[in-house]
Amino acid sequence: MQVRIQLRWSDFDALRHLNNVSYVEFMQDARFALLESLKLGAEHLVEVGHVVAHNEIDYLKPVGMNTRELIVDVKVVEVGGASYKLAYTFLDDSGIQYAKALTVMVQVETETGAVLRISDDLRALLLEAR
Amino acid sequence: MQVRIQLRWSDFDALRHLNNVSYVEFMQDARFALLESLKLGAEHLVEVGHVVAHNEIDYLKPVGMNTRELIVDVKVVEVGGASYKLAYTFLDDSGIQYAKALTVMVQVETETGAVLRISDDLRALLLEAR
Amino acid sequence: MQVRIQLRWSDFDALRHLNNVSYVEFMQDARFALLESLKLGAEHLVEVGHVVAHNEIDYLKPVGMNTRELIVDVKVVEVGGASYKLAYTFLDDSGIQYAKALTVMVQVETETGAVLRISDDLRALLLEAR
Amino acid sequence: MQVRIQLRWSDFDALRHLNNVSYVEFMQDARFALLESLKLGAEHLVEVGHVVAHNEIDYLKPVGMNTRELIVDVKVVEVGGASYKLAYTFLDDSGIQYAKALTVMVQVETETGAVLRISDDLRALLLEAR
Repeated sequence: MQVRIQLRWSDFDALRHLNNVSYVEFMQDARFALLESLKLGAEHLVEVGHVVAHNEIDYLKPVGMNTRELIVDVKVVEVGGASYKLAYTFLDDSGIQYAKALTVMVQVETETGAVLRISDDLRALLLEAR
Repeated sequence: MQVRIQLRWSDFDALRHLNNVSYVEFMQDARFALLESLKLGAEHLVEVGHVVAHNEIDYLKPVGMNTRELIVDVKVVEVGGASYKLAYTFLDDSGIQYAKALTVMVQVETETGAVLRISDDLRALLLEAR
Repeated sequence: MQVRIQLRWSDFDALRHLNNVSYVEFMQDARFALLESLKLGAEHLVEVGHVVAHNEIDYLKPVGMNTRELIVDVKVVEVGGASYKLAYTFLDDSGIQYAKALTVMVQVETETGAVLRISDDLRALLLEAR
Repeated sequence: MQVRIQLRWSDFDALRHLNNVSYVEFMQDARFALLESLKLGAEHLVEVGHVVAHNEIDYLKPVGMNTRELIVDVKVVEVGGASYKLAYTFLDDSGIQYAKALTVMVQVETETGAVLRISDDLRALLLEAR
């Protein structure tokens, strides 16, 4: 799924390029858009507790201050017993790639924080986003 | 080096724990504190261009809303020909660990973006923070 | 001018509505969009120094977590000798208003921070955005 | 009450001074520190719903990139029937003032959003922070 992210003035830092932290924020918003497209929206997630266990990102090319929008291509690449993995590519409309990233998500019981197994229903749903 | 990070209300998200993106911001501030302790401060860095090539983080334990401060232990773990690697551990005063992370930094020429080799002087300096 | 602002997960706080600080960030982005439409874009502004002297905002109605986008209507309402004033209305596609805000901007010399008079050219330009 | 705010790299924008939005975030954190000192902490506030009805701020003097900390002096200046007003002064250790600000807070019923009257107990508590 391709998610368009509108950049903000605050995403650019004193070095006058897109700050490395903002990319991680965009991963989050692309991920929410993906989960919403599977009917696992923000209000639902507040209850169920899909949390990030691991993030990693390779920055390939700086993004200049006149950039107004980036595309984050996000997809599910793996669904395990108790976690699933998402892969992201940051690009622009001309196809130039700026970063590549991965997230491992786990599902936890909101009250106790205990990691939950991924149900067959959730697995089937997530695999739709592969 | 241990850097104390003051948490803000905005670091906590609608799930009412410390948001995964804020940790990556804290890596940045711990890194700047480390580089400043080596006399490579913010104003200097604006000129020289130490940029993040890679970030990765394992979230070990959620941080609750009543937490006011975290400690980020940060050190240089490797200095290569054109990059250096930093390792971070997030903990509190009782020694409980919340996350572990790594950054690969490269030095680039600000004008052209070309990756620069790490000079012997910079290598010696960075190795002091091991 | 109407500027569409894409909301992010991080704009919503632990109270599960749009945090009051994010609105002020949106004022900033709407203002930049307005100035860009007048050919006073981000790179230009880095040189010239239009800075915020005063911000004020009335929050009229909370914005819920399922909201994906807000419209910020922004216009120049006054151009003085050394400052200009912008007014903002936050609304959604159905016309419901969420907030109203004002900013007073001054133009400063980047090096010295001295406040500059608004030139006739800039005044004419800004008055186009009334 | 004086609250010390630790500045972050991300608080400084491409103009290389403290961004106007960050001040509004610091108002929020100073306010929480004040309310916590009155035993109205974050977890409590999630339940009760003290929300911002109005913010205003005058920026007096830019804050440069080498600044690591600001002091926000915050106090209750007025308690009305259904709202209370806080005043803030931003300063550094040498007493130089960078900004002055005001917030009007209202107490709302979390479920319905209806504005609540300020109880005598809350009024007495808030007046302690005058």
